[in-house]
Amino acid sequence: MNLFGPSLERLVVALRCLPGVGPKSAQRMAFHLLESDQTGGRRLADALIEALDKITHCQACRILSETDLCAFCVNPKRNHSQLCVVEMPSDVQAIEQTTAYQGLYFVLMGHLSSLDGIGPTALGMDLLAERLDKNEIHEVILATNLTVEGEATAYYIGELARGRKITVTRIAHGVPLGGELEFVDSNTLSHAFKGRQHL
Amino acid sequence: MNLFGPSLERLVVALRCLPGVGPKSAQRMAFHLLESDQTGGRRLADALIEALDKITHCQACRILSETDLCAFCVNPKRNHSQLCVVEMPSDVQAIEQTTAYQGLYFVLMGHLSSLDGIGPTALGMDLLAERLDKNEIHEVILATNLTVEGEATAYYIGELARGRKITVTRIAHGVPLGGELEFVDSNTLSHAFKGRQHL
Repeated sequence: MNLFGPSLERLVVALRCLPGVGPKSAQRMAFHLLESDQTGGRRLADALIEALDKITHCQACRILSETDLCAFCVNPKRNHSQLCVVEMPSDVQAIEQTTAYQGLYFVLMGHLSSLDGIGPTALGMDLLAERLDKNEIHEVILATNLTVEGEATAYYIGELARGRKITVTRIAHGVPLGGELEFVDSNTLSHAFKGRQHL
Repeated sequence: MNLFGPSLERLVVALRCLPGVGPKSAQRMAFHLLESDQTGGRRLADALIEALDKITHCQACRILSETDLCAFCVNPKRNHSQLCVVEMPSDVQAIEQTTAYQGLYFVLMGHLSSLDGIGPTALGMDLLAERLDKNEIHEVILATNLTVEGEATAYYIGELARGRKITVTRIAHGVPLGGELEFVDSNTLSHAFKGRQHL
């Protein structure tokens, strides 16, 4: 038991559910909340409960959203004929920061992984297939991660779209801007060679 | 506004009250709680509210405690004639881990700092003086930090105790165990020389 009683102990344990927080940081956070920032602590508890209650997934694209349809899906200014498929909502955020893409998204919330028992249904592939059947999408852009699972997922969705005569593209993988060849890992470099384009 | 709505935005802002959590980590934590660990999120909110409601300070020594008197102050096995004065509850935890000390504690919850407007009353010096007046304490051990403020605080409490003819000691500062002289900073080293003892 914790020196200062069971509820502090429970708070320390609960804080460890946060990513990157080990026993020492959890303790530091608990002390900070109780000693120096009780207002912040209450605000955090309220914000957590509110977010967990309100935020669900968009019924069309599975993005985190407070409404049935997310801000992207109801925005008439976006290009509704392009659909970018990503693994996580954080990927959407990264892409939006570039402002290079104006189409819609579809968030899988993961990738195909037979080891973890994650199949097409868990990733909303049926919802995606339904959406593709509506003939509104002319291009599916695959932006899943370049991992074994991400690639397998991209392949699966590629087949889904090709079967419906929809253009399928994959975002380019290669040497990052400002990256020096000397310091780029060999997998990336071999991808950069395979993906070379005519000038 | 956040891409995914105001309550996610509020959660990200609220998470930043945690020490060491910047905008990127706060976002990662928020996504993690909403996507992968909703149970953990609810447990965290409950634990926070419970801890903030239940935990107050011991009326005798200002340690974090769920009861009016903390587990140290009511424990007959501890040496009630020794009082170790520290700045924060986390210091108590560090000392308890050594098991080298069996007396009681007094937690200031900070240090004297005219810049931040923290005077003797805010640190519970009146409570400490009252306690020293009871003639139960025979030794006051000063374990405030070795900073300008910590030293000033130690000096103030030293005067308080000396005025009541109570022995005052300060914990030793010097080269840490296993520390190599080469790598010890010069302040620590000069303290180690000043605090040298007869063999």
